[in-house]
Amino acid sequence: MMIIAGPCAIEGDNFIEIAKVVKKYGATHLRGGIFKPRSSPFRWNGLHEIAIPLAREAKRVTGLPFVVEAMNCKQIELLYDVADIFQIGARNSQDSELLREFGRQDKPVILKRGMATTIEELIMSADFIISEGNKNVMLCERGIRTFETYTRNTFDVSCIPAVHDLCTLPIIADPSHGTGRAELVIPVTLAAVAAGADGIMIEVHDTPAKAMTDGQQSLTFGEFSRLMEQVKILEALHGR
Amino acid sequence: MMIIAGPCAIEGDNFIEIAKVVKKYGATHLRGGIFKPRSSPFRWNGLHEIAIPLAREAKRVTGLPFVVEAMNCKQIELLYDVADIFQIGARNSQDSELLREFGRQDKPVILKRGMATTIEELIMSADFIISEGNKNVMLCERGIRTFETYTRNTFDVSCIPAVHDLCTLPIIADPSHGTGRAELVIPVTLAAVAAGADGIMIEVHDTPAKAMTDGQQSLTFGEFSRLMEQVKILEALHGR
Amino acid sequence: MMIIAGPCAIEGDNFIEIAKVVKKYGATHLRGGIFKPRSSPFRWNGLHEIAIPLAREAKRVTGLPFVVEAMNCKQIELLYDVADIFQIGARNSQDSELLREFGRQDKPVILKRGMATTIEELIMSADFIISEGNKNVMLCERGIRTFETYTRNTFDVSCIPAVHDLCTLPIIADPSHGTGRAELVIPVTLAAVAAGADGIMIEVHDTPAKAMTDGQQSLTFGEFSRLMEQVKILEALHGR
Amino acid sequence: MMIIAGPCAIEGDNFIEIAKVVKKYGATHLRGGIFKPRSSPFRWNGLHEIAIPLAREAKRVTGLPFVVEAMNCKQIELLYDVADIFQIGARNSQDSELLREFGRQDKPVILKRGMATTIEELIMSADFIISEGNKNVMLCERGIRTFETYTRNTFDVSCIPAVHDLCTLPIIADPSHGTGRAELVIPVTLAAVAAGADGIMIEVHDTPAKAMTDGQQSLTFGEFSRLMEQVKILEALHGR
Repeated sequence: MMIIAGPCAIEGDNFIEIAKVVKKYGATHLRGGIFKPRSSPFRWNGLHEIAIPLAREAKRVTGLPFVVEAMNCKQIELLYDVADIFQIGARNSQDSELLREFGRQDKPVILKRGMATTIEELIMSADFIISEGNKNVMLCERGIRTFETYTRNTFDVSCIPAVHDLCTLPIIADPSHGTGRAELVIPVTLAAVAAGADGIMIEVHDTPAKAMTDGQQSLTFGEFSRLMEQVKILEALHGR
Repeated sequence: MMIIAGPCAIEGDNFIEIAKVVKKYGATHLRGGIFKPRSSPFRWNGLHEIAIPLAREAKRVTGLPFVVEAMNCKQIELLYDVADIFQIGARNSQDSELLREFGRQDKPVILKRGMATTIEELIMSADFIISEGNKNVMLCERGIRTFETYTRNTFDVSCIPAVHDLCTLPIIADPSHGTGRAELVIPVTLAAVAAGADGIMIEVHDTPAKAMTDGQQSLTFGEFSRLMEQVKILEALHGR
Repeated sequence: MMIIAGPCAIEGDNFIEIAKVVKKYGATHLRGGIFKPRSSPFRWNGLHEIAIPLAREAKRVTGLPFVVEAMNCKQIELLYDVADIFQIGARNSQDSELLREFGRQDKPVILKRGMATTIEELIMSADFIISEGNKNVMLCERGIRTFETYTRNTFDVSCIPAVHDLCTLPIIADPSHGTGRAELVIPVTLAAVAAGADGIMIEVHDTPAKAMTDGQQSLTFGEFSRLMEQVKILEALHGR
Repeated sequence: MMIIAGPCAIEGDNFIEIAKVVKKYGATHLRGGIFKPRSSPFRWNGLHEIAIPLAREAKRVTGLPFVVEAMNCKQIELLYDVADIFQIGARNSQDSELLREFGRQDKPVILKRGMATTIEELIMSADFIISEGNKNVMLCERGIRTFETYTRNTFDVSCIPAVHDLCTLPIIADPSHGTGRAELVIPVTLAAVAAGADGIMIEVHDTPAKAMTDGQQSLTFGEFSRLMEQVKILEALHGR
């Protein structure tokens, strides 16, 4: 199973430490935002190009492949060398022209479900990528917008087996965005694994309370370690 | 863990057979609607009083306690003798006067989440029951209404750990209504158990294609048997 | 056009004054809750029987018919003499047994749309009333639950012409609950009238800031007076 | 008041005729998609560059300014000469990099609300455009995604006065997408105007049944003519 872990955004040198720790506990891939999509221009949106050498160093130290979001052609170019897997965010999930652009890349793509995208539309969004030639697409359930406000989004666990029924693409779960609350990330990740998720993407930070973004939903090292133990037991159970 | 199983509604003699089979595979409680809430008056809504002797016979044969929905005071009276646990349905989840009535009963109550009820409102609905003296309340996540139409409802798996964080009441999962699709019931039930559900409620039918109601979401005997095997393994894992 | 106005709940003697003022500005019907449905048992829920003489006095003074919500059989009995029109609230909108009970009454009924009830289900709920013999049913759009949190509910203005296309029942608009914000009540009421609403239901209070319930969405006398002027112009326009 | 009318997409020579007719009945601006965003790559998505001369001819014949959607930098360039106002579609409503790009243009922009974008987020999306220097932004309510399936989207009429309360940007209504049903477009447009909309955007087609896209929600010439008569009366009423 793919286990993608790391901070919401690369914030500085602590990225190297986070990378080492998530690797130690079992992460198979590293994440860390370089250009962050935000709802307002007045919010911090990542270190941009300055973060690239940090990503490179973390990859070198850990040997882990790096997953990173790109929001347009220019960012694809800038991130091409450092990226092992591109991520398409929820806000771009139905941006047909951008999807086609990723379809012309020779790197795997993780396509996140949009906040108001149905399961069938998510698969149709993947079709835009595939129809341009890039068949290496993984889908990602990250919660949808509903009337419930206790959680940041409503994690739609049914999406996981539904995707398996409807197509052959792998489906990854992102319980960090799916719940928006660190204390719910462990049980919801286990739920996703039990439902058959092919991978998980988890936000981890050395000091969540000081994170520039998404601190509320980031696990501490101790929490991530406990999560990984439980995930491994569950995986063994499923013979995966 | 509580395992409540049976048909959506008691339809006739086949209820006895269904009861025996679900008991054999591990059900701890029997379910079967006698008065069914429906969205239109032109749809079949249960056998009413005629079903009571069938429920009694199924209880005698299997020794299982019986869970049944009541929608008003008159139904509470009619069902009082045969019911071991009363169920309050999604459409009555915020009916404060009915909730108070259940608060004056001396039998346990399963309170289903309404289609548009937040997690915090669900707990406040339980407060109506508890404030009248009946502290034996179990909550039930059965999916909420969202824009997604592939599933009948969106099963909100986060509700399970959230309820555990917010109060001391047990929380049961109903993936049959939560998905509306038999082929999703197994993975979503496993997800609910992995997320910490204290019980599950599953619709099972001898011939789902011929069920009077909810056939599309009812498991066959074979599917229920497979589900129970997997649930047992998962439970062992959690040391429950 | 039916213009139902008054406070959310009858709170005391000020009900008589509110009744006189809404009558003066053009209300055709008086509203005022006696038993209030609430989400928690720890909130004030109306004056109960004590409010009945106040309702009677307001009716005598103004000559206006009185619209009041009943949530179960007992309340129907208690309110029968004072009620000219019964209201079924959003939380009971799909309570089939209660709907049938109203179908056996000889008074008109206003049926509110539930928070998660589709337009077609609203009409099916009316069928429960009509099928028992009471054909005097008016539907009421009062907003649905969506992800939008700026407004208390999302007022679905399309419901008004849709109901006219789908059946012959009148449809009333309740922009007070539909928005939850007094400053939006005037424009949204005008929208509802322009879309063809057969009536409007507006919460009005002498001192909204001191209202026991729903003060945030209640109009002052001055605001109600301004609203009525604009509604009359719009009505003239439509030749109604 | 701004009245933007025309077909969903430019399909051929009939665009000139549609342009003439909507001008005759009172349109102040012409619309017609050249690159259409779609949910699947297997659906027709506009004539692309071939449509540009048709747009130019329609502008010449009618003298109306032309509103057209662009989905990325390349389309902005291609459409720059023919566009008088750029439109940002619902699927790109939170695409921060594209928003910034429009902020560097010297043409007005109509920003549509995303399917799951709150009113406050819509205004924050406009901030991305404004913060780059382009202050000529108009917002557009076009319906949000909810559980209701009778309409294509739920037209949130409260958004109109809410935007007026929260900022100084104009707000336009698009009842064609907001309802998805031609028979609801007239009443919902009147509702939007009564609620204070600064403009309306209406899909009109010479033969809706044969439209390549959105035929179900397109008005015939006769329907558009009737709508315009009623809009004019309503405008006069508001002294606009």
